[in-house]
Amino acid sequence: MKSLLLSLALGFIAFPLFADPLPSWQDTETKARIIAFVEDVTDPSSENYVIPADRIATFDNDGNLWAEKPVYFQLIFAIDRVSQLAAADPSIARSDALKAAAARDYEAVIKSGKEGLIEVMALSHTGLGTEDFIAAAKSWLDSAVHPQTGLRYRDMTYQPMVELLRYLRDEDFQTFIVSGGGIHFIRAYAEEAYGIPPQNVVGSQTVNRYDVVDGVPVIVKEPEIFFVDDKVGKPVGIDTHIGKRPIIASGNSDSDFQMLEYTAAGDGPRLGLLLHHTDAEREFAYDRDGHVGVLSLGLDEGPGRGWLVIDMARDWRRIYTAGP
Amino acid sequence: MKSLLLSLALGFIAFPLFADPLPSWQDTETKARIIAFVEDVTDPSSENYVIPADRIATFDNDGNLWAEKPVYFQLIFAIDRVSQLAAADPSIARSDALKAAAARDYEAVIKSGKEGLIEVMALSHTGLGTEDFIAAAKSWLDSAVHPQTGLRYRDMTYQPMVELLRYLRDEDFQTFIVSGGGIHFIRAYAEEAYGIPPQNVVGSQTVNRYDVVDGVPVIVKEPEIFFVDDKVGKPVGIDTHIGKRPIIASGNSDSDFQMLEYTAAGDGPRLGLLLHHTDAEREFAYDRDGHVGVLSLGLDEGPGRGWLVIDMARDWRRIYTAGP
Repeated sequence: MKSLLLSLALGFIAFPLFADPLPSWQDTETKARIIAFVEDVTDPSSENYVIPADRIATFDNDGNLWAEKPVYFQLIFAIDRVSQLAAADPSIARSDALKAAAARDYEAVIKSGKEGLIEVMALSHTGLGTEDFIAAAKSWLDSAVHPQTGLRYRDMTYQPMVELLRYLRDEDFQTFIVSGGGIHFIRAYAEEAYGIPPQNVVGSQTVNRYDVVDGVPVIVKEPEIFFVDDKVGKPVGIDTHIGKRPIIASGNSDSDFQMLEYTAAGDGPRLGLLLHHTDAEREFAYDRDGHVGVLSLGLDEGPGRGWLVIDMARDWRRIYTAGP
Repeated sequence: MKSLLLSLALGFIAFPLFADPLPSWQDTETKARIIAFVEDVTDPSSENYVIPADRIATFDNDGNLWAEKPVYFQLIFAIDRVSQLAAADPSIARSDALKAAAARDYEAVIKSGKEGLIEVMALSHTGLGTEDFIAAAKSWLDSAVHPQTGLRYRDMTYQPMVELLRYLRDEDFQTFIVSGGGIHFIRAYAEEAYGIPPQNVVGSQTVNRYDVVDGVPVIVKEPEIFFVDDKVGKPVGIDTHIGKRPIIASGNSDSDFQMLEYTAAGDGPRLGLLLHHTDAEREFAYDRDGHVGVLSLGLDEGPGRGWLVIDMARDWRRIYTAGP
């Protein structure tokens, strides 16, 4: 009896001890530091022990959990949706930007500037219920394909990050997305792709209104911005939705600077992660220049603040969940 | 070996089968219907089975999880806090309403009308970091006592509802507060009182701003309303914070009408609960008249919509967590 229980117990314990929780990460200092942090804060005998309720980890989404080049995938969805709506009713393409979107001329839409982008976002993202919007986003995500990789956008999630999220949850962390992207767009795929349920998604959002449409109560998305969950908005979004300072924050651009700064300032051990896109061959290489995912202040100040910079080319064995 | 395992297994199973999960409820039809609903949606062989991820239950707070008479306890906190601040710096009592609050003249503050109340709320609730605000609320809740019951406000939570929340969580529900009250005020005691952590509290809130004060990044509460989580705001708050339609919604006033309506409209089985304050002896008796917790539309329409009316005098064996 005793030896049977012992061998069962060892069998259960052995798995987490010896299985690699992050197989898509190279065995570099980066991986070692992440695991050392997690083991430290989950060890009841450590002075840095953190109770499960306080094990909050927040992750930026675009460029951090999935790719963001050549532009945010949500913008491509917006253009494709305008094109689909215009096919059913051409009269909605009332401006140059909307006409460009209707023709799926991505370059022209982006060149139309802020005003054009707002028109495209408003037409594609508002005037319908949140459940219908999520259904539209799901439908697009199930089929739309990235022009360069040939992969579905939804399969361009980063496998090493999917593993990190799972590893943290196995260690009784609560994982949240804190993104400048739209909260409902992300919810359309986050549970399936990352194991992150709707209530753990914090994002930007429109003003929403309660209405009873044909006898059915729904939440209607209005063409007005309610909250921008970006830069200084990220710690505010964390406070609103989570109400606790994270102990791990992970991002890839200067839009995440304040989230990491806010996280790092808490008492006790904190882990700040910055993903540096260094892999032109397997993904995209960018940092200080460009319009999407600029990382400059983070590279200058992050290491001095003790934040860990993940070098994609060096630290990751594999990139996309659906990739080689 | 086999008999040992069997007796162990029966031991584990017997407890939930035979223990009463709601001992402070009378054995009435109300209690039977609540338990029947929960048993139905958690039974894998039932056609009404709901997977754990979708077992979302939302609860109003004031008058539903704790008392709300003679006025919302948060308002008493606000007045007491102005009084405390004015003791340190009398110059802040710049208006009649603030002078009344400084003197803890509750009647006069309430009579000062909407403008006076806004002054009292602004002075007591803004201009400081959310963590400091929560600390102030905790400190008040630890000592302040209700003038009629002699109990601490924080001990005037309803024991039958505390049991219902625990029962639901034991059955793999996720329990949320969805309140017109302030999100940070509720977070100051919800985890301890109800077992509901900060991220499961949805409430009204001020505009908040990220700032680095003396080198420490904080979220500062500004004297401007960001979101009113009341009436039509409740389903909107649910959509923003939870992202799923609840299957159970529980409230006590017409401010909860839309939350119950939104919940009941989902596919499959739904449970709407309305707490009717019928117990003048042990608590307070009120419904259609007054300023706080008016329940009129709910009484007219609720039963016809299949919502279950809890009659406090008839259905509850015990009222307050700290009471007899």
